[in-house]
Amino acid sequence: MSRIPVGLVGVTGYTGMELARLLAFHPRLDLVRATSRTDKGKPLQEIYPFVRSTKLDGLVLTEPDPQDLARACELVFLAVPHGAAMDTAAELLAQGLKVVDLSADFRLRDPGVYAQWYGLEHRHPGLIGDAVYGLPERYAPDIAKARLIANPGCYPTSVILGLWPALEAGIVEPAGIVCDSKSGTSGAGRKAGVATLFCEIHDTFRAYGLGTHRHTPEIEQELGFLAGQDMTVSFNPHILPIDRGIHSTIYTRLKGAITQEGAAKLYAEHYAGHPWVRVLPPGKLPETRHVRGTMYCDIGVVVDPRTGRLIVCSVIDNLCRGASGQALACANLMLGLDVDEGLRLAPLMP
Amino acid sequence: MSRIPVGLVGVTGYTGMELARLLAFHPRLDLVRATSRTDKGKPLQEIYPFVRSTKLDGLVLTEPDPQDLARACELVFLAVPHGAAMDTAAELLAQGLKVVDLSADFRLRDPGVYAQWYGLEHRHPGLIGDAVYGLPERYAPDIAKARLIANPGCYPTSVILGLWPALEAGIVEPAGIVCDSKSGTSGAGRKAGVATLFCEIHDTFRAYGLGTHRHTPEIEQELGFLAGQDMTVSFNPHILPIDRGIHSTIYTRLKGAITQEGAAKLYAEHYAGHPWVRVLPPGKLPETRHVRGTMYCDIGVVVDPRTGRLIVCSVIDNLCRGASGQALACANLMLGLDVDEGLRLAPLMP
Amino acid sequence: MSRIPVGLVGVTGYTGMELARLLAFHPRLDLVRATSRTDKGKPLQEIYPFVRSTKLDGLVLTEPDPQDLARACELVFLAVPHGAAMDTAAELLAQGLKVVDLSADFRLRDPGVYAQWYGLEHRHPGLIGDAVYGLPERYAPDIAKARLIANPGCYPTSVILGLWPALEAGIVEPAGIVCDSKSGTSGAGRKAGVATLFCEIHDTFRAYGLGTHRHTPEIEQELGFLAGQDMTVSFNPHILPIDRGIHSTIYTRLKGAITQEGAAKLYAEHYAGHPWVRVLPPGKLPETRHVRGTMYCDIGVVVDPRTGRLIVCSVIDNLCRGASGQALACANLMLGLDVDEGLRLAPLMP
Amino acid sequence: MSRIPVGLVGVTGYTGMELARLLAFHPRLDLVRATSRTDKGKPLQEIYPFVRSTKLDGLVLTEPDPQDLARACELVFLAVPHGAAMDTAAELLAQGLKVVDLSADFRLRDPGVYAQWYGLEHRHPGLIGDAVYGLPERYAPDIAKARLIANPGCYPTSVILGLWPALEAGIVEPAGIVCDSKSGTSGAGRKAGVATLFCEIHDTFRAYGLGTHRHTPEIEQELGFLAGQDMTVSFNPHILPIDRGIHSTIYTRLKGAITQEGAAKLYAEHYAGHPWVRVLPPGKLPETRHVRGTMYCDIGVVVDPRTGRLIVCSVIDNLCRGASGQALACANLMLGLDVDEGLRLAPLMP
Repeated sequence: MSRIPVGLVGVTGYTGMELARLLAFHPRLDLVRATSRTDKGKPLQEIYPFVRSTKLDGLVLTEPDPQDLARACELVFLAVPHGAAMDTAAELLAQGLKVVDLSADFRLRDPGVYAQWYGLEHRHPGLIGDAVYGLPERYAPDIAKARLIANPGCYPTSVILGLWPALEAGIVEPAGIVCDSKSGTSGAGRKAGVATLFCEIHDTFRAYGLGTHRHTPEIEQELGFLAGQDMTVSFNPHILPIDRGIHSTIYTRLKGAITQEGAAKLYAEHYAGHPWVRVLPPGKLPETRHVRGTMYCDIGVVVDPRTGRLIVCSVIDNLCRGASGQALACANLMLGLDVDEGLRLAPLMP
Repeated sequence: MSRIPVGLVGVTGYTGMELARLLAFHPRLDLVRATSRTDKGKPLQEIYPFVRSTKLDGLVLTEPDPQDLARACELVFLAVPHGAAMDTAAELLAQGLKVVDLSADFRLRDPGVYAQWYGLEHRHPGLIGDAVYGLPERYAPDIAKARLIANPGCYPTSVILGLWPALEAGIVEPAGIVCDSKSGTSGAGRKAGVATLFCEIHDTFRAYGLGTHRHTPEIEQELGFLAGQDMTVSFNPHILPIDRGIHSTIYTRLKGAITQEGAAKLYAEHYAGHPWVRVLPPGKLPETRHVRGTMYCDIGVVVDPRTGRLIVCSVIDNLCRGASGQALACANLMLGLDVDEGLRLAPLMP
Repeated sequence: MSRIPVGLVGVTGYTGMELARLLAFHPRLDLVRATSRTDKGKPLQEIYPFVRSTKLDGLVLTEPDPQDLARACELVFLAVPHGAAMDTAAELLAQGLKVVDLSADFRLRDPGVYAQWYGLEHRHPGLIGDAVYGLPERYAPDIAKARLIANPGCYPTSVILGLWPALEAGIVEPAGIVCDSKSGTSGAGRKAGVATLFCEIHDTFRAYGLGTHRHTPEIEQELGFLAGQDMTVSFNPHILPIDRGIHSTIYTRLKGAITQEGAAKLYAEHYAGHPWVRVLPPGKLPETRHVRGTMYCDIGVVVDPRTGRLIVCSVIDNLCRGASGQALACANLMLGLDVDEGLRLAPLMP
Repeated sequence: MSRIPVGLVGVTGYTGMELARLLAFHPRLDLVRATSRTDKGKPLQEIYPFVRSTKLDGLVLTEPDPQDLARACELVFLAVPHGAAMDTAAELLAQGLKVVDLSADFRLRDPGVYAQWYGLEHRHPGLIGDAVYGLPERYAPDIAKARLIANPGCYPTSVILGLWPALEAGIVEPAGIVCDSKSGTSGAGRKAGVATLFCEIHDTFRAYGLGTHRHTPEIEQELGFLAGQDMTVSFNPHILPIDRGIHSTIYTRLKGAITQEGAAKLYAEHYAGHPWVRVLPPGKLPETRHVRGTMYCDIGVVVDPRTGRLIVCSVIDNLCRGASGQALACANLMLGLDVDEGLRLAPLMP
């Protein structure tokens, strides 16, 4: 089978690292360019000793150069911060490259909402319409035809997949939903800083950004599409002393009576054709480790008749399903491959 | 100053271990009896090497014997499972001992509610009226006069302290409250079992007992007293890969407009005379490690005008404030000592 | 390509769990039997929710029955405790099955040494001669022809690979070697017990079995073959608060002068044809996470001229390379497949 | 009782944080100055929320000013990096202050050795003779009279206490000793950096600085005093995914026959008058958590007749006994207080 050359702009963060992991043994995609302004000229394996003896062994980091990337690659992953990504995406698209942008720059349909939550004017609003939100279960056909993917945020992936069946079936009130989400620390990125030092995270737990996290408008936008109405959601993140994993506990109010079994059946049927979303049997709850390193989203639903609530626990790996694995699934689709090429991975347990 | 002899029934669990820690250097209380059916005859320091070279060094475990305890002690801590504790408490009270029961057996005023949630008929309902709920900020005068303390549960302590000011001031709706609580693994006890092995808890996260945890009626009872009406609360626990600490994120709906500053001020004034409850300045959120090993309850309040919610983060150490330290504070009061005798401890950081 | 049916006796421990992980997406081997006396009749995915939506989804646990296994499988992995494994192995071999035994029962050539260190008489000494020690780098041709594999222990794998080049080249004294090894807690197995509870392992560190661990004679036997003389090694294990990974720091005395570069070159050349053993450049030291979930053994060598020592750091994943992955590599060879079939896995980072 | 005012230069690192913890409830010492160039003007509780409601609640950080410190304090703790500490110490001593220097600047008797290992010329060699090495068990009388304390390094504290009885009694060879030490991550300091981010330390393990760590000459100097001869030691540090704690496994060769019981007895008698050093009974090994937050040094000794070795496991809390607690013990002695004033703390378990 022929191999397809791809590039990665911004390899030194955790999403770049995760793409390196997933591409190290990908059967069809070859990572031929990996860029880093600070580490250009160094072998990738000096930065990431874990890729030694894989097919990434010999790769040397380069400076990001759109023309060079266009000559060498068919598709480029952008793993750079929001704000910077939009310009690079525009440059790469202008060179005819397909682009999967892991940042938030093209996720919000409304550039005004972007400006409000990210504190930045969007410099390429004309490209927003070209971008497809890269959630394969929902937008696979559009993804396959896209030249620009806005790869979903980690928290939104867990929340959207967790609420989709209930909102679409109309069994819960769209108003008053609370998402209490907990994320592994890799979600905070690989930047030097005191707040995410080992001794500041280990053996402790805290909330942050209650009600103000930037993933809120992304969640509200996509849930709004599902519910067919504007949504306001209370989204509240916390940081976990684990490497990977997001656990969203989502509190909704039931519109009418439904049994635990009925709710689980509704969810299971909704995701019947989507093997990456695993709805647990009634009474079972998911764990972040059960999806570690994979594209799975495990969902447990609880009906609490005392309080009239449907509580949904939705669990993903923030780096794989919530970032780089999802980006790779989109790339697979854009390049005519099976969506799960290179992603048939079992969770690392324990 | 004279020393007061006390006993501990059930030393081998984590709450017993925590009492041993707190009594190892207590300036006024001497632990003269520590019982364990399985380990009787062994020196305590064989079970707990960390007490070597403290004043507990020479203590030898005995079988629990009410008459022996009555001869040797003025007060006894019960750190045995619910169901078993009520009988032992009755025996010890009959011997004239003061008793601090760390189990749930005397926490619920209504034995019918106890039977419903714990699946057991209460065998000593006549003693329930004698029991004082051992939350010092709320019941100190009654605690000082009590012969039997129902020591609060760990989750309820964090939730009650977190909601007290808001409910008493009437700024939030009593209906529709959601508590998303996360606990360190020591809360699961020190029993052999696969589910709490290191490799089953480390680097993972999960919910359990959503809507069905036994601390629910205790929370509802005490919040009902505060609100002056029956309360139904959605209480939902999760297990954290940390040793100690509870973080309760409590979602309420505001009745009217209030600023973040106003809410923080209301809380700070409410707890002005209670140095163990530390209300953080507006914009600050608590962390479990900031209370590690202490009686502190750190509270951060967030007003989210977008969703009309007051969100309260309430953090305690589940073993110290949530169990053994609170028991010791009650014992101090019952024995005429300062409530914080032996509890003037700084959090272990990091 | 045709698929080959295999079985697994003893699925509920961590080595069984790891085999399930590795077989969930194996391209050529199909796990058609998984046995457990305690959980027979249950779907595997009830025990291990992480295998849902993989090809192990429908597997139901059975009682171990040699005739049933022989009818259904070509090869069986034994993941049961030492002592029990030897009888089951004998029964399965008698049925004509190929067997990979993950226990210690067939690792020691001398049944007297086995009796001395394991406190058991060997009941099938006649089979010891048939068993091949399953270290692929060393014994691949014999493994391919074997009907019984004695899968190496986790610690020995790290120590043998770490010392092989130095001992074979004769640059270090065979006497006086000290191995200070540290293992993740999964090495202690998945048995209910207080000593390996989360709260007994997390945020702490300790040694155990200094000088007396049962892997000592296995290490000495294989190093003796390499050195061409009897070896006595001081082997000293410690337990790490991590899930997976062994780090052996091995202290030897140099016979003569050699540079750091020279030692690294010697090691790199020795393992040139063995891509799973990755010798780091001079000055680099390995980390357990760089091999997480894989067959890699990362080795860093340090020459300390002040003390005349060669210090070797040898790192593996105790569950994959140190147990189930190595067993699978042996099975691949025994069944005529590439040694790395189903094992082309990148380390999970972070 | 009168209170004694003390100062702390450099409060924002982990050793400064630990001094804040220990002084928050110290019965005799009052922290009246805490300095930080970067955070001057901020309340200490903004940096360290854990000190709220303690007697440090109102303290505001100042810039380090020797004259101000001299007016306000009797003694100053220096918790600044080596290289910088020597100048500050000289300035403070010139103002008549007593100084406890937590850095390495005055630990080595020979400024040439300092220059060689630290890559710096010593700028105040004339003060080295005034400095007393602050290990209370060994130098208490000198400490009490000193005006300048060179507070011991964390690793050296564990190794020196671990080897003292054996070397002094002459039961082991002084040559060929190997120290394999493992430290919690707080030992790496509280500086922003990628290498000590949570996701770079958690669930992994590695060695560093094998044979080249700067604590080596300090260990050799003090062991040389004990052995009465020059010592060369192979000292090899590793980093543990825990907050606090050092575990040194020390490998020595026995000169003659001694039983496990004999070795334990020798150690126990040696430390009979020193309650902070706890020699475990034969067959018991120490754990870092058993000394968490305290001054204890727990020691287990193993005689391995197969290899002719005495193996010593010596465990301390690197921040308390290995840094700030030991500094406080020295300060207590220098100020005429009991050595354990403010240090009668039980280990935090679990």
